[in-house]
Amino acid sequence: MSAPDPVFSHLDAQGAARMVDVGHKPHQARAATAVGELVCQPATIAQLRARALPKGDVLAAARLAGILAAKRTDELIPLCHGLPLDSVAVDFEVRDDRVALTATARTTARTGVEMEALVAVTIAGLTLYDMMKAVDKTMVLGAVRVTAKTKT
Amino acid sequence: MSAPDPVFSHLDAQGAARMVDVGHKPHQARAATAVGELVCQPATIAQLRARALPKGDVLAAARLAGILAAKRTDELIPLCHGLPLDSVAVDFEVRDDRVALTATARTTARTGVEMEALVAVTIAGLTLYDMMKAVDKTMVLGAVRVTAKTKT
Amino acid sequence: MSAPDPVFSHLDAQGAARMVDVGHKPHQARAATAVGELVCQPATIAQLRARALPKGDVLAAARLAGILAAKRTDELIPLCHGLPLDSVAVDFEVRDDRVALTATARTTARTGVEMEALVAVTIAGLTLYDMMKAVDKTMVLGAVRVTAKTKT
Amino acid sequence: MSAPDPVFSHLDAQGAARMVDVGHKPHQARAATAVGELVCQPATIAQLRARALPKGDVLAAARLAGILAAKRTDELIPLCHGLPLDSVAVDFEVRDDRVALTATARTTARTGVEMEALVAVTIAGLTLYDMMKAVDKTMVLGAVRVTAKTKT
Amino acid sequence: MSAPDPVFSHLDAQGAARMVDVGHKPHQARAATAVGELVCQPATIAQLRARALPKGDVLAAARLAGILAAKRTDELIPLCHGLPLDSVAVDFEVRDDRVALTATARTTARTGVEMEALVAVTIAGLTLYDMMKAVDKTMVLGAVRVTAKTKT
Amino acid sequence: MSAPDPVFSHLDAQGAARMVDVGHKPHQARAATAVGELVCQPATIAQLRARALPKGDVLAAARLAGILAAKRTDELIPLCHGLPLDSVAVDFEVRDDRVALTATARTTARTGVEMEALVAVTIAGLTLYDMMKAVDKTMVLGAVRVTAKTKT
Repeated sequence: MSAPDPVFSHLDAQGAARMVDVGHKPHQARAATAVGELVCQPATIAQLRARALPKGDVLAAARLAGILAAKRTDELIPLCHGLPLDSVAVDFEVRDDRVALTATARTTARTGVEMEALVAVTIAGLTLYDMMKAVDKTMVLGAVRVTAKTKT
Repeated sequence: MSAPDPVFSHLDAQGAARMVDVGHKPHQARAATAVGELVCQPATIAQLRARALPKGDVLAAARLAGILAAKRTDELIPLCHGLPLDSVAVDFEVRDDRVALTATARTTARTGVEMEALVAVTIAGLTLYDMMKAVDKTMVLGAVRVTAKTKT
Repeated sequence: MSAPDPVFSHLDAQGAARMVDVGHKPHQARAATAVGELVCQPATIAQLRARALPKGDVLAAARLAGILAAKRTDELIPLCHGLPLDSVAVDFEVRDDRVALTATARTTARTGVEMEALVAVTIAGLTLYDMMKAVDKTMVLGAVRVTAKTKT
Repeated sequence: MSAPDPVFSHLDAQGAARMVDVGHKPHQARAATAVGELVCQPATIAQLRARALPKGDVLAAARLAGILAAKRTDELIPLCHGLPLDSVAVDFEVRDDRVALTATARTTARTGVEMEALVAVTIAGLTLYDMMKAVDKTMVLGAVRVTAKTKT
Repeated sequence: MSAPDPVFSHLDAQGAARMVDVGHKPHQARAATAVGELVCQPATIAQLRARALPKGDVLAAARLAGILAAKRTDELIPLCHGLPLDSVAVDFEVRDDRVALTATARTTARTGVEMEALVAVTIAGLTLYDMMKAVDKTMVLGAVRVTAKTKT
Repeated sequence: MSAPDPVFSHLDAQGAARMVDVGHKPHQARAATAVGELVCQPATIAQLRARALPKGDVLAAARLAGILAAKRTDELIPLCHGLPLDSVAVDFEVRDDRVALTATARTTARTGVEMEALVAVTIAGLTLYDMMKAVDKTMVLGAVRVTAKTKT
């Protein structure tokens, strides 16, 4: 089962969407890491560093929103399986013109968690966007992708 | 109230997160459009065009996931207000190396809907990602931003 | 606006699903009533009458499940608008071979509430089904339809 | 544990509702299939076939709504256990005067999935109802029942 | 409508639960404040002050959890109406042997928001409990009550 | 793993919130019981006994709300893990000046269920509060705490 079928696995022979049956797959420890970045004006970053970082609520809000959303991935992405997440972590690196985001999700389940990591990164990024949008109309969320996926 | 205060409006004087009080703002017709793109391998796009598009379920799934998520924006983005959305539309343009996404949300409310449009774009994009990830490990979701915001 | 367009209003000219824009419609007091029935073995009804009705928890559970689901109709039915419900009521008539269900939803909004009434009836009916399925494998939920819809 | 107790298992000795304790039951592969039908005017079916089916969004929307709702069965049906679904599939047969719906859910868990299959059928049916209600006020959702339940 | 009927307004004449019909009530600006306290060991408070407060994530997590839960009050409390909240704020006072919590919710709607304020206080309190339970098994959440309710 | 680390386990070395990784913990049968009380006017209790108890809907509503909320604990408490609950039970003792609440949650999982029991008690208590608030403005929810936690 390690090599995925090179077709759209969520479509049946008639092209209809379905949840792929994972009942025959073994429970394995799985992890995935996703990253992304919210590109901002340098003045926005300066304000984030000066005003928000000491108090922590801006990044804490984004971190928690990402964690909470990861746990609800199967409600948001229609064909995702519900998974008991062993852990989720969301981290930020505040650079001069952007905030880099990283999320890692772990589970012991029959299918992987890259969607959970991607959901965590995007919702954390949009939460930052929401909190900073009054001061910066130019922000762009991008470079959202999976950087690691393991199964042991 | 048309000029937003050039500070992080979601933080109080002590830096604590809060939902901004919008009780004094008028109900106005508001709209916002957000865009993004899911960059793929050309072979993935070829397969999307050949196999999935005739049946429609792939793009339909992404569209519906974006619409459903937009309606739950206030559950995902912690400081967003709940809004009765008048409409949400999600559209796709399938190009040779990417799928361009556009979402427009409309409301008649005391506050704007750019977050709803952004949530629709990102969740629609991640739903595409989920359905195509078995054939393409290189996809990147990016260029997510607001392109229009109106109030009348 | 009283005569609906005789086409599938949730599809745009390209056949894509969308939430219909209701922003131009007036806020009006609207109500809808839906009914349905859960057909059971007479022995099941006898047991419901003898054992469950004095305590009330079976019908109370179904009633509350219907009310709660009605409030989440827009999360369940993808193109439904979120609505502030003024009231929801779910009633039961326990007959010799079935339980008849009636739900009425009311709102003051730009669009109607028949879907809310239908969701209340079906989820209330399935909750009854769940509580009685250990004693009756033959139950059928049917005759689910809208019996009244008003706008004033 | 294979023969269910012939009483309402969700009520305790005092008649109070409870989640049945399934902690002692083994994890087993379980499946359930439920069916139902949405009876429509033949003209509605004609329009569904002519206008909506080529694009797919109508049936795709109903299918996805059913899958998504199945995953949230334990939020809708108060005494249902949360289950990790291995798969959910929803299929339609468009007949001359009705749409027949079939849903199959699978899990590997301590308790069965007939409620998940029933929720998928009813919410898929109501989503069809919602999309076609502008052209047909006579639709009835009925004959919703479980047709197969397995445990291996 | 200012004097509530001195009976259980959520029960009809037969004792069945219902959502009270608020369709005839005017939209008014409404606010409610609720308080509560999480009583802890002084050593727990010392650790909260020394380790967690500089970073902010503990109180920020509790604050955001309370705000998010307040927005979902109608999903948690079965007979509550869905309300568009104008604002929610959750504040903490860290005393030597307890954390005092205060939440204020505001809306412009047909019914009040004391349940939203109470939900914010209790879920914020339980979130603190969750984060501190590894170091203190004696915590008690109490004195949860409404301290102010206004309508203008 | 039986002795928890005497620090705030939900904070990493930098003070950032995280879901604790439980992937290395064994699946064990776990249970937790929490209690609380809603203190009321004696006249409120008299009315509860006279009018509501025979019909059951008041306590049934609170019981079901508590059970439903327990199943969503990981959506409400940001750093809680999602757990498949084997059972949840909520019980009431109606005393002359208060309603005493008890909730017990059971799971077979890698982490405990005291938060689920606490959520059940508090949401059940607030549901009672909601149903009785028209007749009693003095109610206080308190003494919410864990009374038992087992792992076998």
